Amino acid sequence: MMTPSIPAGFMELLPEDQIRMNTMKNIITRTFEKYGFLPLDTPVIEKSEVLLAKGGGETEKQIYRFTKGSNDLSLRFDLTVPLARFVAQHQNELSFPFRRYQIGKVYRGERAQKGRFREFYQCDIDIIGSETLSILNHAEIPAAISEIFCAMGLNEFVFHVNNRKILNGLFTSLGVEEPALVLRAVDKLDKIGREGVEKELAELGMSAEKQGELFDFLSIDGSNDEVLSALDAFPCEDEMYKLGIEELATVLGGMAAFGVAEKNMKIDLSIARGLDYYTGTVFETFLTGYESMGSICSGGSYDDLASHYSKKKLPGVGISIGLTRLYTQLEEAGLFRFPVENHLEVLVLPFPVTMEAGIKLVQTLRNEGIIAQIYLESGKMGKKFTYADKLHAPYVVVVGESELQEGKYMFRDMATGDQTAMTLDELTTKLKAD
Amino acid sequence: MMTPSIPAGFMELLPEDQIRMNTMKNIITRTFEKYGFLPLDTPVIEKSEVLLAKGGGETEKQIYRFTKGSNDLSLRFDLTVPLARFVAQHQNELSFPFRRYQIGKVYRGERAQKGRFREFYQCDIDIIGSETLSILNHAEIPAAISEIFCAMGLNEFVFHVNNRKILNGLFTSLGVEEPALVLRAVDKLDKIGREGVEKELAELGMSAEKQGELFDFLSIDGSNDEVLSALDAFPCEDEMYKLGIEELATVLGGMAAFGVAEKNMKIDLSIARGLDYYTGTVFETFLTGYESMGSICSGGSYDDLASHYSKKKLPGVGISIGLTRLYTQLEEAGLFRFPVENHLEVLVLPFPVTMEAGIKLVQTLRNEGIIAQIYLESGKMGKKFTYADKLHAPYVVVVGESELQEGKYMFRDMATGDQTAMTLDELTTKLKAD
Repeated sequence: MMTPSIPAGFMELLPEDQIRMNTMKNIITRTFEKYGFLPLDTPVIEKSEVLLAKGGGETEKQIYRFTKGSNDLSLRFDLTVPLARFVAQHQNELSFPFRRYQIGKVYRGERAQKGRFREFYQCDIDIIGSETLSILNHAEIPAAISEIFCAMGLNEFVFHVNNRKILNGLFTSLGVEEPALVLRAVDKLDKIGREGVEKELAELGMSAEKQGELFDFLSIDGSNDEVLSALDAFPCEDEMYKLGIEELATVLGGMAAFGVAEKNMKIDLSIARGLDYYTGTVFETFLTGYESMGSICSGGSYDDLASHYSKKKLPGVGISIGLTRLYTQLEEAGLFRFPVENHLEVLVLPFPVTMEAGIKLVQTLRNEGIIAQIYLESGKMGKKFTYADKLHAPYVVVVGESELQEGKYMFRDMATGDQTAMTLDELTTKLKAD
Repeated sequence: MMTPSIPAGFMELLPEDQIRMNTMKNIITRTFEKYGFLPLDTPVIEKSEVLLAKGGGETEKQIYRFTKGSNDLSLRFDLTVPLARFVAQHQNELSFPFRRYQIGKVYRGERAQKGRFREFYQCDIDIIGSETLSILNHAEIPAAISEIFCAMGLNEFVFHVNNRKILNGLFTSLGVEEPALVLRAVDKLDKIGREGVEKELAELGMSAEKQGELFDFLSIDGSNDEVLSALDAFPCEDEMYKLGIEELATVLGGMAAFGVAEKNMKIDLSIARGLDYYTGTVFETFLTGYESMGSICSGGSYDDLASHYSKKKLPGVGISIGLTRLYTQLEEAGLFRFPVENHLEVLVLPFPVTMEAGIKLVQTLRNEGIIAQIYLESGKMGKKFTYADKLHAPYVVVVGESELQEGKYMFRDMATGDQTAMTLDELTTKLKAD
């Protein structure tokens, strides 16, 4: 006999947990749809040559790649490359700005470790323009996410917002030739201190004066208005730098117009996110008091989505919730603060002689939109109530012969243990009110 | 530049079609949940040794199998084997009868041909008992499916119902040693005629007398009651045969109790479905007038779900809708008879000077639960209306400066072209009523 198990690094939930996970997925789906994002459901399997057109690097090693017949195939490792492929492929059939959401599983053969999954859900929204895209779209994206987190009862979160043009412009004006190396040195500030970073920057050929300028820039802090003022006042004349500040100000103003609360957004000049990929706005999202979780939702804007597949310039902005990871993080932190949806509402318990009446009752309740189940097995009432307990049925209806003759059913509140004889109308009204 | 494309045999829909597909998926999900089926979301990737514990045969050749590191992995080819694995693995954490639904993609590397997909959705429900399961559960399964098809506007369908014990019992009483070969011969009746079949049966060693009995059995026809009477009267004393008739009668009676209309169910002694797998009740479902589609929803009961993974006997019953195939079949037949859900309801068109008012308006509408979008790009009004047309937005709200000063918005019905100046309240009421 084969011992049943699943591969390491894959999530599989028991039904009660899956209901909670599905509630999160439903909240996300509903909100994305309310914001007019269109659904997309691309294949899990893509042609390897298409998926890897960009060239992989780190990601490429993690890809599930295989051949079937003469086809070289790969499982998608995110939803962005398939989006780029889709938009390029169907650009003449789409209306721009094209707004799509996709919620689906992606695959990365990472080293198995706690909180890391090899199969996980990404929940993505993107807005793609044809040649141009208003920067106000950058502001709408976090508004949708804000609504999702609030619906999950997670009101204490902060969008960290930055614009990569600012740092790029600054680097240009400082004459930095290898921004990636400078950023890597700067990122060690907490670890090796200012002196350690200065040493590394010197090795990269940055003069003490320019190092001073860089550290002045990095020390800019305060409220969003204060940071914007300080950025304006900062002595950098680079055009890219100035454009970055203007865009950042527009995005923050737009977020406010879209209803994101002031307390939920913060300029954070330290976030850069995916050096190659994002070119303008970047977002990270942190739960207040749980910053150690890392960003629970990240995204940004890009100048051209599909340069590997299309000559048309397709600027866009997008954001992604890593749902599988978020689920485990919320579970560990005890942060499931939303009521679950689509849970069993009532279990009907018939006796053998009232089986047909029980079946008719459960169908009547279902026709009223109530989530209802009937226990069709034989056995003692005690066993049936144990089943109701295990299912966490909030209510049970016992279909007794004598009550039935009076047109009534025994209605039991499983939390209080209260029992009341009720007519069908009373029963339905009570269940629908709950 | 890489030409963007997906592998052959994979479905990918444009957003308008995807909305229709999602509506079907929503109808199925809602109904499964209303019937108290619990959600399950097993990994797409399983260990090959677990997935193939049963031994594959035809299916095995079609499996997407690959290694990653030292792991021998396969993509699931149905949702039943993963269910068996899951129930065996978690049997001590589940409550029986265990009712689960799963809607997910499965993978079969079939020869690419029209209407056949290598990645397709299965929508499964199963009820699993521990050691025993009331046969009334067999009747509840088609009731759920019936509700789904009716919600899709497909009221003219027929469940073909049979019980494998009947034929098995008959074969025992006829001394048939190789039922599969006899069935294969009988299946050629339409093609090679009774004489041809008789010749093959003779070759299999069946006497003329027994052939006569078999043909008498196969000629049983009529209304459900007539067939049941004829089966009762048929001279076969095998216990399995009699049990099969009793079960068949119970299932049909149960289906009626669960509200399946008499016109929607028909005993069909010719259906056998998966010789090895199903052991009792079997279902196929045909759309009246579109029988050439084949069965659009099939299932049945089995004595033991997980004999390869568990010593516990787990009898069950289940059914599956092949959603991807059904979608294409309904499309080709012009049978999309349901209103789509979650389509854009209104597009807000601001001018540059009314941008902020437009943003506030679209957020107000979204807060009312209306699916709303704002066009944030610059450009002439004509271009914006073209966009609204392409999105099939039923209504457009133009946020004009002069109307705004009177607290009004220009509301346009895109179908009729009628324009009315409306207050926010009027607008919201109108959109929510629609």
